[in-house]
Amino acid sequence: MEDRTQQEQASPEVRRRIQESFDRQGLMTHLGARLAHIGPGRVHILLPARPEVTQQHGYVHAGATSAIADSAGGYAALTLLPEDSDVLTVEYKINLLAPAAGDLVEAVGTVLKSGRTLTVCRLEAYGVHGDGERKLVANGQQTLIRVNRPAG
Amino acid sequence: MEDRTQQEQASPEVRRRIQESFDRQGLMTHLGARLAHIGPGRVHILLPARPEVTQQHGYVHAGATSAIADSAGGYAALTLLPEDSDVLTVEYKINLLAPAAGDLVEAVGTVLKSGRTLTVCRLEAYGVHGDGERKLVANGQQTLIRVNRPAG
Amino acid sequence: MEDRTQQEQASPEVRRRIQESFDRQGLMTHLGARLAHIGPGRVHILLPARPEVTQQHGYVHAGATSAIADSAGGYAALTLLPEDSDVLTVEYKINLLAPAAGDLVEAVGTVLKSGRTLTVCRLEAYGVHGDGERKLVANGQQTLIRVNRPAG
Amino acid sequence: MEDRTQQEQASPEVRRRIQESFDRQGLMTHLGARLAHIGPGRVHILLPARPEVTQQHGYVHAGATSAIADSAGGYAALTLLPEDSDVLTVEYKINLLAPAAGDLVEAVGTVLKSGRTLTVCRLEAYGVHGDGERKLVANGQQTLIRVNRPAG
Repeated sequence: MEDRTQQEQASPEVRRRIQESFDRQGLMTHLGARLAHIGPGRVHILLPARPEVTQQHGYVHAGATSAIADSAGGYAALTLLPEDSDVLTVEYKINLLAPAAGDLVEAVGTVLKSGRTLTVCRLEAYGVHGDGERKLVANGQQTLIRVNRPAG
Repeated sequence: MEDRTQQEQASPEVRRRIQESFDRQGLMTHLGARLAHIGPGRVHILLPARPEVTQQHGYVHAGATSAIADSAGGYAALTLLPEDSDVLTVEYKINLLAPAAGDLVEAVGTVLKSGRTLTVCRLEAYGVHGDGERKLVANGQQTLIRVNRPAG
Repeated sequence: MEDRTQQEQASPEVRRRIQESFDRQGLMTHLGARLAHIGPGRVHILLPARPEVTQQHGYVHAGATSAIADSAGGYAALTLLPEDSDVLTVEYKINLLAPAAGDLVEAVGTVLKSGRTLTVCRLEAYGVHGDGERKLVANGQQTLIRVNRPAG
Repeated sequence: MEDRTQQEQASPEVRRRIQESFDRQGLMTHLGARLAHIGPGRVHILLPARPEVTQQHGYVHAGATSAIADSAGGYAALTLLPEDSDVLTVEYKINLLAPAAGDLVEAVGTVLKSGRTLTVCRLEAYGVHGDGERKLVANGQQTLIRVNRPAG
């Protein structure tokens, strides 16, 4: 059931819109993050571990983990909103549960409640090893507000 | 009063220890962030605005703002702990109050309570313009846990 | 699967210990709350709706909902800790998703990560109607710290 | 400076409106809480310590402290909004810094940012002893949304 949901794709139009927005985020490119899945109400973003995204002990920095989790939640919200919408993060809270070890970090944003003005998302981040081991390293909650998308 | 506090410096030993830790954070270097002030219980970090740290509308990305705020709080905590200490972020919550416009973002971490095991910090981020205008763009709260510093 | 987990009971010793602690919480009694389920890593608390627990529009007050959610998380943490343990709430964050309408509010605390010092829980609250309708009205996340239980 | 701000009163009309709303909150009456100060962008609520509001060790329950802090923030937001407004708590996060010891708990809600749709408040709670000792026991942050006040 979980797997089916994860594999359900948003419409091509929604995926294109989100990929274009993502590509305009200088930070995501600079960190080396990429969109891995865009489903209705759920978005996954991957961040390969490399020295440019670490903290002082060599693990992926909480700030980098949070950045991709925040973006994953924002885009998950966007999948459920009308086409002329954009979202801004109002706030989020994140618990760092374990060092973000592994070959990459996978952030998952899932919509808990999609309202007319506000959306609330669950944020999760997993440390993923090459051998397939996958461990929850961060868990959070995010509030977003819908705004009209600037033209052009 | 505010100004005096901001300008009070931590001891040279504490400042050296924090600068060394900061320099080992690949993410801080990669983002272009730098330590601007290390006082007892208060640390400031600056992040110049440039395309590599933006979101889709050209403002500094909430993830980048959060990353330097998280680091500022962590180092503020460290200024008040014994020399063999390190800290890990347990969790933080941040409200994004306004678009992070300006020439740079300044994050300020301030210790609210320094306990034996846990430290709680206030996090603030300001958008700073070349003409000196300074606007609060994010406000948060962070919990950290003290751990023993891994030997050299 | 969900149902099986919800019905799994903690040991009689754990349930007795938690019930006794709950009974010493003057606030829980004063609000009219009661323990509904004590499973390993999961506790449910019920709060019947009545005028004494409302806000200005007649729904159950966010403060009452939060109070039982906080307690549910604390006791969920306790089910997984050694017998001489007690827990203190370090912090929690809660989103109020909808007015807490219904005949009672059911709070569910679920352990996400149980560490030696810190425990992180998910908090949920549902508005439950007499006809069985059940709606998520609040969702949150909580950090707790283990302390040694005072003797006696 | 701090004192001057604390003593500045909101207009009689605003104070009357807030007092009436407060009096309709069954929970506040049931807990024994009372409005102590209504200033522009800042509201104080007092809660006398008594067995009905305690946790298992006899201190004021985090849930009771949070409930008055949440209300203080909500009313602080309301002081700055048009007359036909009401507010709902979107979310809040609170750190419990120390046991809420003392003869009463004083919650202070202060507006950090008042927007057209959303308001962000700082929440503080102090344990106050009869001899005047006053200690910060909780610190938090809250997001509220403006809604039109139901007629009547």
